Amino acid sequence: MKPRAFLLDAYGTLFDVHSVVVQGAGEMRGDLPALSALWRQKQLEYTWLRSLMGRYEDFWEITKAALQAAVAQLKIDASAAQLDHLLDAYLRPAVFPDAKSALAALDAPASILSNGSPKMLESAVRHAGLDDRFVEVISVDRVKTYKPSPSVYALGAKILNLPAEQILFVSSNSWDAAGAKAFGYRVCWCNRLGAAPDDLGFAPDLVVSYLDQIEADLRP
Amino acid sequence: MKPRAFLLDAYGTLFDVHSVVVQGAGEMRGDLPALSALWRQKQLEYTWLRSLMGRYEDFWEITKAALQAAVAQLKIDASAAQLDHLLDAYLRPAVFPDAKSALAALDAPASILSNGSPKMLESAVRHAGLDDRFVEVISVDRVKTYKPSPSVYALGAKILNLPAEQILFVSSNSWDAAGAKAFGYRVCWCNRLGAAPDDLGFAPDLVVSYLDQIEADLRP
Repeated sequence: MKPRAFLLDAYGTLFDVHSVVVQGAGEMRGDLPALSALWRQKQLEYTWLRSLMGRYEDFWEITKAALQAAVAQLKIDASAAQLDHLLDAYLRPAVFPDAKSALAALDAPASILSNGSPKMLESAVRHAGLDDRFVEVISVDRVKTYKPSPSVYALGAKILNLPAEQILFVSSNSWDAAGAKAFGYRVCWCNRLGAAPDDLGFAPDLVVSYLDQIEADLRP
Repeated sequence: MKPRAFLLDAYGTLFDVHSVVVQGAGEMRGDLPALSALWRQKQLEYTWLRSLMGRYEDFWEITKAALQAAVAQLKIDASAAQLDHLLDAYLRPAVFPDAKSALAALDAPASILSNGSPKMLESAVRHAGLDDRFVEVISVDRVKTYKPSPSVYALGAKILNLPAEQILFVSSNSWDAAGAKAFGYRVCWCNRLGAAPDDLGFAPDLVVSYLDQIEADLRP
């Protein structure tokens, strides 16, 4: 059965988080690919840790703290102004080309369910020219915890007013796909990098390499 | 004021998790330091993710799943028997030399509060010859979730029957130190590697480079 709605993750799925360092590093020197990887890793870790601690801070604050920790750990020499500039680039991440074409082709309404703060999501969607593509842009900020908490996934089904099994949840983050599957969504993992799957006990229903393969794969 | 009890993390704090690959890899080839780092990273990630998902599996199962995912991601060629052998070595991790001397010198009772399963902890403590050093060896398995959930830290204070602020919680994992501090313990971060601190909003009360510096640092 075709899904009645698509619910997409944002960072890593629609938006290329590693475009941020490319666009925002300016004159900064050092191992910038390592910075990008560690920044992302710490950003995710802090969402998980603060959620478990019951000490929510929004994704902008977490992204800032993760950047500072990554720069310190890699001993990258950067001024406060350079770090501000880099953080600011997180408001304008590049959209993946396959995301644009996929969104134009989906034959059911699409929405976003993301860790991002409302401000970050509004900016990223607008900058990517995707304003008219989404029915809902849903931030975890409404429940003050992060993925893969079931309360986040419940928010999506509630706002879309559909049973989770009639919604196709799409993420490039394999742990996010597992969390959504554990909650009850139909799930597509978009594995652009050909990564080995994580084993969290909940395999996706569908695996694609690019988002614009979803429609074809759903055809009977 | 001197703490009335010490409560120590196990893996990374008393036991060197990276000793496991050194001791258990046998004839396995590939980038073993990378395997050790990724295995540990995925092990921790799976504890956080499964806790947030509300899908607890014990630390032995998580350590096994993390090993398989790490081997797959690094494309390391290993037989099932080799992986079993490597996993089995997790029952006998090396104890840090400074942990042995520190435990002999502490002037208040010491206990363990660890993610490890009861079987893993019992084996590691016995193998290290530390059986008589601990009053309590407490596993998160009693509450079926992982650090840094407050329910784990609450378990320690409850079993020791002391207010958290009269217990010195000791961990080499900076996120664990932050979680314990958020709960209410006095906290010592043992930073053997001179790592940059994580910023989770809760700084430790004391930072040492080795566990056997704790006693001296607590002297008035």
